[in-house]
Amino acid sequence: MSEVKILLTEKEIPEKWYNVMADMPNLPKPPLHPGTKQPIGPDDLSAIFPMELIKQEVSQERWIEIPDEVREIYRLWRPSPMYRARRLEKALDTPAKIYFKYEGISPAGSHKLNTAVPQAYYNKQEGIMRLSTETGAGQWGIALSQACNFLGMECRVFMVRVSYDQKPYRRTMMELFGGSVLPSPSTDTEYGRKALAADPNTPGSLGIAISEAVEIAAQREDTNYALGSVLNHVIMHQTIIGLEAKEQMAKAGDYPDVVIGCCGGGSNFSGIAFPFVHDKLTNNAKVRLLAVEPSACPTLTRGKFAYDYGDTAGLTPLLHMYTLGAEFMPPGIHSGGLRYHGDSPLLCQLVHDGIIEASAIDQTSVFEAAKLFARSEGIVPAPESSHAIQSAIAEALAAREAGESRTILFSLSGHGLLDMPSYEAYLNGKLNDYPLPEDILANSLQNLPDVK
Amino acid sequence: MSEVKILLTEKEIPEKWYNVMADMPNLPKPPLHPGTKQPIGPDDLSAIFPMELIKQEVSQERWIEIPDEVREIYRLWRPSPMYRARRLEKALDTPAKIYFKYEGISPAGSHKLNTAVPQAYYNKQEGIMRLSTETGAGQWGIALSQACNFLGMECRVFMVRVSYDQKPYRRTMMELFGGSVLPSPSTDTEYGRKALAADPNTPGSLGIAISEAVEIAAQREDTNYALGSVLNHVIMHQTIIGLEAKEQMAKAGDYPDVVIGCCGGGSNFSGIAFPFVHDKLTNNAKVRLLAVEPSACPTLTRGKFAYDYGDTAGLTPLLHMYTLGAEFMPPGIHSGGLRYHGDSPLLCQLVHDGIIEASAIDQTSVFEAAKLFARSEGIVPAPESSHAIQSAIAEALAAREAGESRTILFSLSGHGLLDMPSYEAYLNGKLNDYPLPEDILANSLQNLPDVK
Repeated sequence: MSEVKILLTEKEIPEKWYNVMADMPNLPKPPLHPGTKQPIGPDDLSAIFPMELIKQEVSQERWIEIPDEVREIYRLWRPSPMYRARRLEKALDTPAKIYFKYEGISPAGSHKLNTAVPQAYYNKQEGIMRLSTETGAGQWGIALSQACNFLGMECRVFMVRVSYDQKPYRRTMMELFGGSVLPSPSTDTEYGRKALAADPNTPGSLGIAISEAVEIAAQREDTNYALGSVLNHVIMHQTIIGLEAKEQMAKAGDYPDVVIGCCGGGSNFSGIAFPFVHDKLTNNAKVRLLAVEPSACPTLTRGKFAYDYGDTAGLTPLLHMYTLGAEFMPPGIHSGGLRYHGDSPLLCQLVHDGIIEASAIDQTSVFEAAKLFARSEGIVPAPESSHAIQSAIAEALAAREAGESRTILFSLSGHGLLDMPSYEAYLNGKLNDYPLPEDILANSLQNLPDVK
Repeated sequence: MSEVKILLTEKEIPEKWYNVMADMPNLPKPPLHPGTKQPIGPDDLSAIFPMELIKQEVSQERWIEIPDEVREIYRLWRPSPMYRARRLEKALDTPAKIYFKYEGISPAGSHKLNTAVPQAYYNKQEGIMRLSTETGAGQWGIALSQACNFLGMECRVFMVRVSYDQKPYRRTMMELFGGSVLPSPSTDTEYGRKALAADPNTPGSLGIAISEAVEIAAQREDTNYALGSVLNHVIMHQTIIGLEAKEQMAKAGDYPDVVIGCCGGGSNFSGIAFPFVHDKLTNNAKVRLLAVEPSACPTLTRGKFAYDYGDTAGLTPLLHMYTLGAEFMPPGIHSGGLRYHGDSPLLCQLVHDGIIEASAIDQTSVFEAAKLFARSEGIVPAPESSHAIQSAIAEALAAREAGESRTILFSLSGHGLLDMPSYEAYLNGKLNDYPLPEDILANSLQNLPDVK
């Protein structure tokens, strides 16, 4: 029987990232300055980003070289394995073939480290030895703490206070790797002190944490800011997932009919899907690309295609994307990484142009799928990643229904070993599907910023 | 540069386990019946073990075939990767080469699944569809729950109450894989009810949990018992670690000067070391074999070589081993998996005969090593496994001191992602070295059972 695991050697780690902008029929509208509402230029960004990342942000080169030093660190866990999920196929009694690309083997436990390492690297190249960032559930904070540690840099993480208190395992992970973690709002920034003055017991929010991290980066010469999703350069770094996956599919003598990934800010989905978008746009490949989001935060499926802020405070540039409105507060689902009101402008444009599909699914069906997957394949998936599992299972059952084979590839973006409280809630029947607060959504969509 | 990860294909999964009994100069003395103190026979064990495992327990065949069905399940994670720890070598500025074999990639997160799967399999072959066992910190309970799940069997786990309450992540893992977990003492067994009657608020103990699990298995026709370490067949199943490691060292064009593993009941250490014992005994290989235990529970280094019970209640057969006395209660170190008063009789005999070395080290030095390892290699190690890391680092520093190269191989038996509270205590300076309670040890050693 053929192998369960399809492995590449370290020599096969891709030497270039793929930049989808080279192939897109329509580029996204440019980001706008939050004050002037005019397109921003490199100078607007250079206070908080290194020039090399700003160049990547606007580059239309198809292939961008991965620096040797970055590939050297990638070797600690890359190439990541691809699995043929034979036991899951059997459990589903489906003629479909199910493959998954597993990013949970990274030191960070998720795909986030793929971009944390080059971001830290390019900053260090330009003499910046200190990064600041925000983190919600902690996945991104762990990844950036690790990347800074590997490169001998400092990392300051503003962690939303409610997560800081409720997710001590994640906080300890960051600290183990040398990250300095502050509950946000903190007393270290003007914005934090203001928030604390307004409400000393505030649970914090990602919006506040972003504002704090950006404030530090903007004020301190020695500190830059790093973001874990949404931006073009972040998305591009993640294409290493899909580039490897294509090599692995070729080794398995196969090619996917459908590629599936969960979608929050878009970096995981785009990472696995964009190299196949390349095949579709340049080679007319017959591959479907499916982004899956939670029905509680249905950015791509229910959002408006418009300019909006990236944060709740309205301090970031305006991005043109599908958005639920920057003030939309999604219900407290267990997939913290997917609770974002916007999405990568690149991904949104491709959805808008009909090149990528999107769907939204309910939380309990996600955990049901996660359990079946864990029991079949032995891997405990992150709740976020389990959105892709649920959809892969749906595709496999549709194939059974249709009595036809189908090759399914999905990205398993992270493990769920630190998500046991969510599984406990699920196993004890304490997990709900949250109805989308339609009135709040409607309000939020009406309050999008005015851009002429 | 050569690869960081030395990988084998699934075709290279060993087809046989190695049985060290075939090569030992002196076999251990036989287990004795706890009542008659006469050697036990197969009939004494058949109430709780399947005949095939009883045969393996006494077999002196050098190679025992691994059933295809077991190898098929092994393929979910085996062969496990070996790493060259180049970043650690660099951090230590040592001429030594450090390799480690990583068992933390298993679905259970540790080496325990290597024996849980064949144990479940042989039971199923003989019509037993239900296993009972005990677990302390939860590693073994997770492994057996998963193995039973993969084979469609039931699993009943008696989890020491204090762990049941304090380690809910581990409990949830078992339940996610279908294990039914009871806090021990429970009301399900006579022994448990008696313990609860004596003290309704008892935190429980591994001794009580073993007694409960064995009671169920002895009384119910449909249920057998499974043990995660110590016994000969368990040790043998774990030799797959060392057999793969030898293939991987050969691929790297290397051979170890020293092989290191942490040691609680002995299954991890023996797993990596015994295939090299084979080289030493049959081929005069110049390889040192080093078992590392906590100084708080120094079985091999401070124990008595004598007959003793496996449990605190004195219900199990008497095994001839190094023991601290069945009533010895080690201090509450964070390496729960190494807090056992005895050790595998096979391993003990080899230590006694000077073929294997042992050493004992302090908890804080173990966590110090764990942090350096995590920051160098990106993997968070289990506190238990970090005993091997500490010793590997000591070997590497000795090599630097001596100005000579040295090839070091250690087993990284599990990840520490569910041990974050221990890391938090360490990072916050709240971790102590526990002085060994000398008076308690002396007492305990005086009270060993009388065997003529």
